[in-house]
Parts: sequence; structure tokens; C-alpha cells
Amino acid sequence: MEVMQVLHMNNGEGETSYAKNSNIQRKIISETNSRLKEAILNIMCNNKEVPESIGIADLGCSSGPNTLMVVTEIINIIYATCRKSGSSFPELRISLNDLPGNDFNYIFRSLPAFFQKVKEEKGAENCYAVGVPGSFYGRIFPRKSLHFVHSSSSLHWLSQVPVGLATNARTTLNKGKLYISQTSPSDVINAYVSQFQNDFSSFLRSRSPEMVTGGRMLLSLMGRSSIDPTIEDGCYYQWELLAHALSTLVSKGLVEDEKIDSFNAPYYAPCPEELKIAVEKEGSFIVNRIEAFEIGWDASVSSNSSTQCEDKKILLLSMGQQVAKTIRAVVESMVENHFGNEIMDDLFSVYGDLVDDYLYKKRAVYVNLVVSLTRKD
Amino acid sequence: MEVMQVLHMNNGEGETSYAKNSNIQRKIISETNSRLKEAILNIMCNNKEVPESIGIADLGCSSGPNTLMVVTEIINIIYATCRKSGSSFPELRISLNDLPGNDFNYIFRSLPAFFQKVKEEKGAENCYAVGVPGSFYGRIFPRKSLHFVHSSSSLHWLSQVPVGLATNARTTLNKGKLYISQTSPSDVINAYVSQFQNDFSSFLRSRSPEMVTGGRMLLSLMGRSSIDPTIEDGCYYQWELLAHALSTLVSKGLVEDEKIDSFNAPYYAPCPEELKIAVEKEGSFIVNRIEAFEIGWDASVSSNSSTQCEDKKILLLSMGQQVAKTIRAVVESMVENHFGNEIMDDLFSVYGDLVDDYLYKKRAVYVNLVVSLTRKD
Repeated sequence: MEVMQVLHMNNGEGETSYAKNSNIQRKIISETNSRLKEAILNIMCNNKEVPESIGIADLGCSSGPNTLMVVTEIINIIYATCRKSGSSFPELRISLNDLPGNDFNYIFRSLPAFFQKVKEEKGAENCYAVGVPGSFYGRIFPRKSLHFVHSSSSLHWLSQVPVGLATNARTTLNKGKLYISQTSPSDVINAYVSQFQNDFSSFLRSRSPEMVTGGRMLLSLMGRSSIDPTIEDGCYYQWELLAHALSTLVSKGLVEDEKIDSFNAPYYAPCPEELKIAVEKEGSFIVNRIEAFEIGWDASVSSNSSTQCEDKKILLLSMGQQVAKTIRAVVESMVENHFGNEIMDDLFSVYGDLVDDYLYKKRAVYVNLVVSLTRKD
Repeated sequence: MEVMQVLHMNNGEGETSYAKNSNIQRKIISETNSRLKEAILNIMCNNKEVPESIGIADLGCSSGPNTLMVVTEIINIIYATCRKSGSSFPELRISLNDLPGNDFNYIFRSLPAFFQKVKEEKGAENCYAVGVPGSFYGRIFPRKSLHFVHSSSSLHWLSQVPVGLATNARTTLNKGKLYISQTSPSDVINAYVSQFQNDFSSFLRSRSPEMVTGGRMLLSLMGRSSIDPTIEDGCYYQWELLAHALSTLVSKGLVEDEKIDSFNAPYYAPCPEELKIAVEKEGSFIVNRIEAFEIGWDASVSSNSSTQCEDKKILLLSMGQQVAKTIRAVVESMVENHFGNEIMDDLFSVYGDLVDDYLYKKRAVYVNLVVSLTRKD
């Protein structure tokens, strides 16, 4: 599986689309608002004058109601700061990045109305937005073009399935599982850890020349609270239950056993220590903070403004089925690529039931890590 | 009709897509190659050293096999120049612009393979491409960010239907016609001329702050050879025949008369003198050259590499039907918006027959104007 070609949130605006099922990701963005403000104010006030032109990038912007949320917030912060200090609104160069399979058309069609609103409300005419297709594990921006880099709910995706665990690997190391599990041998865990270290280093090394000195980076990604990668928090249990759902389809004759053995998710939920060590090792950035917060699986459900018109339909779904929709919108492109389109409805229906069982037993949470960095001299 | 929302070349890769029917536009790009080389060499050699970072923009890039043609040629010219002078390949910031309705997803998905090839063949790793959705009649780029601006087969599209001729205009000035015609009253001609002047001035005024001093602009667009806007060359007769085809559908009861009266194309084919005067009036650019060349309507047909696999099917079509496919790929989004989707197949079939009749009587040509400009101090 070529992650760059396969991975994308579900396109369009249909029932299984990411646009309609991205509540969790919205809540995560909201939770990091105070850190966002801190970073932007630092960029604006650290210099004697507000910079004339500010380059900002949102990496893994996806396409849906969340895409312009961070940009909106940044514009609001800059506008308020300029009003306060009496300085004029700086030129804003906004780069929206995601893999080439992302639905950029959807974003682009919403931009004219978005900037019309910014112009009317803030009088800001000098905002320029571009789409940047490509993997953030490589260089994607010109030298010294960025003051602020943001990425939310993206960096837990690896650039590839860990070496040795890909579909065409000779041995089946991770039998019956899709990600690190309590039954996974240490070779599997090491392969995941080392792939994440390589990828996260590539990420930092690529951003380093693209950012100005003093530039800020705010990253939030799925993670875990403990050094032990088999701990049950993080997104770990989502993969465990998905493996379980697939086994159920095996018993129904819908999926072959070997298919499960040969799939390993290009995903890794790190712990804060791993991130800190990786940043220090690369050497271009100072760690301002690394924080963790929990967010309940049920956060995907409540007060979903984007699906208000479908509320009645959604209320008929169990909590597990609603969680399943959130996960489906994110992982379907990959899972479908490996297991085939025809089992998707069955798979996520069984999965939803398993989530219901699980939630009946305990309150499940995701752990989200928030990392704030500054580009060194 | 909101041109910005409605106008786009036919999306996708189907039989009526622009991707499959853009031979004419490809030939026009090829015809301007020597001028392109002249402009790029000027940018690279006018300074003592090759600039470290070069910003280039293709305005109205569309989505199809032509989209990356100009970029490819630019990279080739820069690469050859660097090899010759022993200097290193500069950072290349490539902006691909079109209206937000353009199929950017199609372009973006072809970029990884494109840049992989550039890397392998030229060793050039520092090329960065972005998509810029928006109308080039307004500001779309940051200040002083561009060294070279290219636009082919786009600037003959107006930002709107000329004032007084829009669908909701109170009077029907241009009865039975879709564009300036020999029967059009002077009010219609004046409305078109003045809309073009406004738009072309806005275009120049918007580019002026975006370009560096000494930056070059190469524009090619449909035009006409004479000062008289009712002359039969240029794209004039295409609209005349399309009006004729619509009248045929009126007689079959498929279209209402009034529908034709209330449609006027947001299009204008200027003469060289109009362009020269507009550039001088705006004042930021020096006119290096304005040239005109003719291209036969039949150029849409021969040696279409992008449709090789469908060759047999295409050879069964008459010349007129093939010309009709070219025109359909370009104007359908607008015509469909006004007349409805259900008559499109009939319309372009009748139109193809009319083109056959016309081509039987004479060799029809488009007139293409090529304008080369330099940004003044």
C-alpha cells in the first residue's frame, strides 16, 4: 500500500464523508485554542513591529467544516492584535496542505465566500490562500517562507507501513492484529517505534529550512499517556476492535484470515517522551511545551452542528454506531484498499456493535498530545 | 450568471472532458514557445546572477494534459541555462491558478509523478507547486512574489457578462445572438468593448504589485485581426454558429426563443491595438511585443496523443463533430447553466453539422494574440 496514494479522509459530503463525521477533530482543534493564541501573539509581538507578511501553513488540512477553523481563529487573533496596537493588518499567506488524494476541490469552492466574509468583517483584503498537495514528511514549502506551522490530527499517520510489516512482507509477524497489540512480538513494536522516529525526524528536518528564525509550530496528534506502547488508551483500542470486527467477518466467510495478518496500519500514537527526544535529536527547534489531554470517544456524538439536518437519523444510531462513523470517515480509504469495497458496510456495522459492548464496560478516551515548538536561530 | 462560479472547462477524463479535448489549446502553447524562452532567459540573465528563488504563475491553468506543459517547458529552459552557466538550479515556486470550479484534484493527483520525473531527469529537488483558486481579475498573489506570469487561452473570458446584457437585463438588445454579431446594435458592441477594457485593466492593476521589477508576462488569448469587432475571424463565428444551432432547437420546440436573447457570452476577442492602449493606460508594464497568428479550426483534430486509445472512435466523427467536441469542452459549463443539461447532446450534434457545412465553404481560423510585457521600475 502506498500511503501517499491511498490515505485520505472520506471525500464529498455524503453520510460516510469526513465532512459530516469530523466532530472529534473539531473538538481537538478547539482544545488547543489557547496554545494557538500564545503562538500567534508570540510571532506578532516578538518583533518590534508586526511582520509585514506572515506565512502560515496548516498541514493535513483535510476537507470539511474543520479545514478553515484554524485559519479563521488565526485571522481573528491577528485582527484583534492589530486593532489593539493600531497597526495595519499584515499580508497573510495561507497554505493548506494535505496529500494529493485530499478533496481540494471541496475546500477551494468554499474559499470565495470565506474571504468575502473576512473582508466584510475585518476589512482584511490581503489574505492569500493556496493549496499545497504533498507529504509533509518531505519538503513542500520554499525556504524561510513560514512563520507559523499548524497540524492537527495528522502526524499520527506514518509515511508508510513500518518496514517488515507491509502487505508483501515475507513473514506474518502481527497475526490477527492491525496495529501494536498486547499479543504483538517485540519485532512489531520495534518496527512501529522506528518508523515513527524516522518519520517524525523527516518532518522536523523538512520544516527546519522552511521556517523563519523564531517561527512557531503547534502540533496536535493522537498519542498515549505511558511509555508502554501496548497501553489501552490512545487510539490503540480502536484498532483492536477493528481487528475483532474483521475476525467476525472471517467467521462469516466474508474475509480471509491472511488478509488481516497482512494488514498493518500506517499509524503510531507516541508518548510525550518520544516526541521530546526526537525534537532534541533533530536540533532545529526548542520544545516550549508538550501536553496531553483526554477526549472521550463519545465526543464524536454530541452537538454536531454540521449534521443538524440529519439529527433525527443520527439519534436513531447507537453510540457505538456513531463512533464507527467517525472512524470510518478516517480509515476507510486504507481499509477499503486492502479488504475491498464490498465488506465496508458490514465491517463498520459489526465494529459499531463491538464499540457499544466496549463502551458499556468502560468510559473510553483518546489521548491527544499537543506540542509547541520554536524554530531556533 | 456568476462567471466565477459557473465557468470551468469540462471536468474529469470522459469523452466530453476538457482533458480529452484540448488540442487547440496545446497547439497555441506550442506556438508561443520561442517567446516563452525569450522571457525566461531574460529573467535569468538580466541579473548578474541567476535569482536564488523564482516565482512563476500560470493563470487559467485548467486541468488536463496541457496544465503542466508550460511548467515543463520553463523547467527545461531553466535547467539548460543553469547547466550552460554552471550555476545551481534556483528554487522554483510554481503557482497554478484557475477559478475555484476548476478540477484541481485532477492536477494535484498528477503532481507527485511529475516532480519525481523532474527530480530524476534534472536533479531538481527544489520545485514547489501550489494551487491558487481565484479570479485573476483581482489580487491573488502576495506582494512582489512573481518573476514570470503566463496565461494561455484564458484572458478572452470576461469577469462577467457585459453590464446591460446579463440574463436579468430589462431589454433584449442582442436578439438571437450570443456574442457580437453583424446584426448587433452599437450598444451591444460598446458594452463588450467597455467590459473588456475594465477587465483587462483590472488584470494588469492586480498583477502590478504582485510582480518584481523586471518581471515578465506572456499572455496569449483569442483575438481578432481587425479593429472592426464584427469581423468574421477570431472566435466570432463559433458563437454565430452556436446561436444558429440553438435556433434550430427552437424550431424543434426544444429551446425557447427568449432563452437565446437573454444569453450573452462573457467573452471578448480584442484586436492588438486595444491591448496596447490598455497596457499603456495602466502604466506598470512595457509592451515588448504583440503578435497575432492564425490557427485552423481543424487543428483540434490531428495527432491527438491524449486520445490515442480512442482514435478509432474519433476517426468516425466528421471534422465538424470534432470541432464541436473542442468547443463543448470549453463552453458547456456556461451554456448548460443557462439552457439546461437535457439539450446539450442535441445542441452540440446540430452545432457539429453546422460547422461541417461552414468548413465545406471555407477554411476557418482562430486568431490568437501573443502579448509580451515587462514590469517597469
